[in-house]
Amino acid sequence: VIYAVTPTYWRHVQKAELTRISQTLQLVPNVHWIVVEDSDYKTDLVRNLLTESDLIYTHLNAKTPPFEKLKDKDPRWKRHRGVEQRNTALKWLRENLKLGKDKGVVYFMDDDNTYNVRVFQEMNKIKTVGVWPVGLVGGLNAETPVLDKKTGKVMGYRSGWRPDRPFAIDMAGFAINLDLILSRTDAVFSYKMEKGYQESEFLSYFTTKEQLEPLADNCTKVYVWHTRTEKPVVNGIVPGLEV
Amino acid sequence: VIYAVTPTYWRHVQKAELTRISQTLQLVPNVHWIVVEDSDYKTDLVRNLLTESDLIYTHLNAKTPPFEKLKDKDPRWKRHRGVEQRNTALKWLRENLKLGKDKGVVYFMDDDNTYNVRVFQEMNKIKTVGVWPVGLVGGLNAETPVLDKKTGKVMGYRSGWRPDRPFAIDMAGFAINLDLILSRTDAVFSYKMEKGYQESEFLSYFTTKEQLEPLADNCTKVYVWHTRTEKPVVNGIVPGLEV
Ligand SMILES: O=c1ccn([C@@H]2O[C@H](COP(=O)(O)OP(=O)(O)O)[C@@H](O)[C@H]2O)c(=O)[nH]1
Ligand SMILES: O=c1ccn([C@@H]2O[C@H](COP(=O)(O)OP(=O)(O)O)[C@@H](O)[C@H]2O)c(=O)[nH]1
Ligand SMILES: [Mn+2]
Ligand SMILES: [Mn+2]
Repeated sequence: VIYAVTPTYWRHVQKAELTRISQTLQLVPNVHWIVVEDSDYKTDLVRNLLTESDLIYTHLNAKTPPFEKLKDKDPRWKRHRGVEQRNTALKWLRENLKLGKDKGVVYFMDDDNTYNVRVFQEMNKIKTVGVWPVGLVGGLNAETPVLDKKTGKVMGYRSGWRPDRPFAIDMAGFAINLDLILSRTDAVFSYKMEKGYQESEFLSYFTTKEQLEPLADNCTKVYVWHTRTEKPVVNGIVPGLEV
Repeated sequence: VIYAVTPTYWRHVQKAELTRISQTLQLVPNVHWIVVEDSDYKTDLVRNLLTESDLIYTHLNAKTPPFEKLKDKDPRWKRHRGVEQRNTALKWLRENLKLGKDKGVVYFMDDDNTYNVRVFQEMNKIKTVGVWPVGLVGGLNAETPVLDKKTGKVMGYRSGWRPDRPFAIDMAGFAINLDLILSRTDAVFSYKMEKGYQESEFLSYFTTKEQLEPLADNCTKVYVWHTRTEKPVVNGIVPGLEV
């Protein structure tokens, strides 16, 4: 089972984003979608979308504390995003699944990225931690682990930002075996981690660079893109249209 | 058969956009995807994507004349987009399909919008021209035909821009029966149409406001959003990654 963890928050494009993601997941066999709303309560918008999706899902919510919330004028890198929500999903996994009995991988799947369904086929090969390129991130057409030609193992990273990080990999560029997630119960995301180091610090709980499993045809194929959707100008709300 | 006509042009997000659209269409039974590249020749990127999609498709190309091409600094409304490509698709339909024998509807499906698969179920009900709301367009959360409560027919439009147009409907908000497309061979898009009047003038060949068929639960549901993807900053290209 692939446990796909999606933090999400209200804005005008939210329903469109979640519609795209849910339709992508409909093409994936054996997926369990864990949607964590950044809000004090579960909204009808997300509840209806999940009910109508025909997917196996879990609907959670966890509000980002106000002091960590991104302000409209703040640059995007200024604050961690999705920390609270991903941790809530980790807690749910650890409370509801059993090490040794439940099998699968955990993937952090933001609501605005673009996912080729092939990336989920790759995940089914993962024994510990699998990695692959991510398109359109950090000022490059793609970031990617760099492989040693002889051993086929990861020896470094091509990344537009701090390729010297222990794991210079975007959230969309790895998935972790459920056994590891359930064993290392201390592994969580944290506001104390340096900005841009969430992925690297989280992965450090589970693996080393040498142990990473390069996927997507030896990291030569791009199956996921770090796309972002323009914030639309909305000056008026038409009443009577269903959320 | 739903003939979905998609104009597309090269930019860094193109493959991501077409991946999303092709995966949406994989959930639609009986669709024929007509992809028209805005280029002098067919590219490997699009060719490979189509070959790997498992969809029934037709791959065409037609370059927008340079004088009509949107400049980077131009505001988006300044030029018509997709005119050449949609006309090339119309020409293909009229040359390759037979009135009376081939049945279906024609839908103009831009590569960057978001489509709920339910919009395609609605299209199967169309006898002449079907219409429905479109989310996130013209400064509103959604544009929509306004129905007469008694007759259930279209009596006007809620639209952020010129609701007084004969048909104040976005390209994503209608589909046309193939019989009509094949009968009115003079109906094409044109650079001579006033900016923002392409849809309205094109629809005028086929129908009247009174004849429109309102779909999506009497135009109360939003199944398509006029989303746009941010142009990513790309300063570097990593070699050796597959297009
Ligand atoms: O206040 C916020 C901002 C973002 N997110 C979610 O966190 C993930 C990452 O956010 P975003 O895509 O904005 O980050 P970036 O594109 O900058 O990596 C997405 O699934 C968002 O829906 C959230 O739950 N609350
Ligand atoms: O130079 C161009 C610009 C746009 N398009 C295509 O025409 C359609 C409409 O363009 P766009 O989405 O940019 O328009 P808007 O969002 O402003 O309606 C899309 O399918 C684009 O891929 C194109 O073929 N050539
Ligand atoms: Mn994002
Ligand atoms: Mn568009």
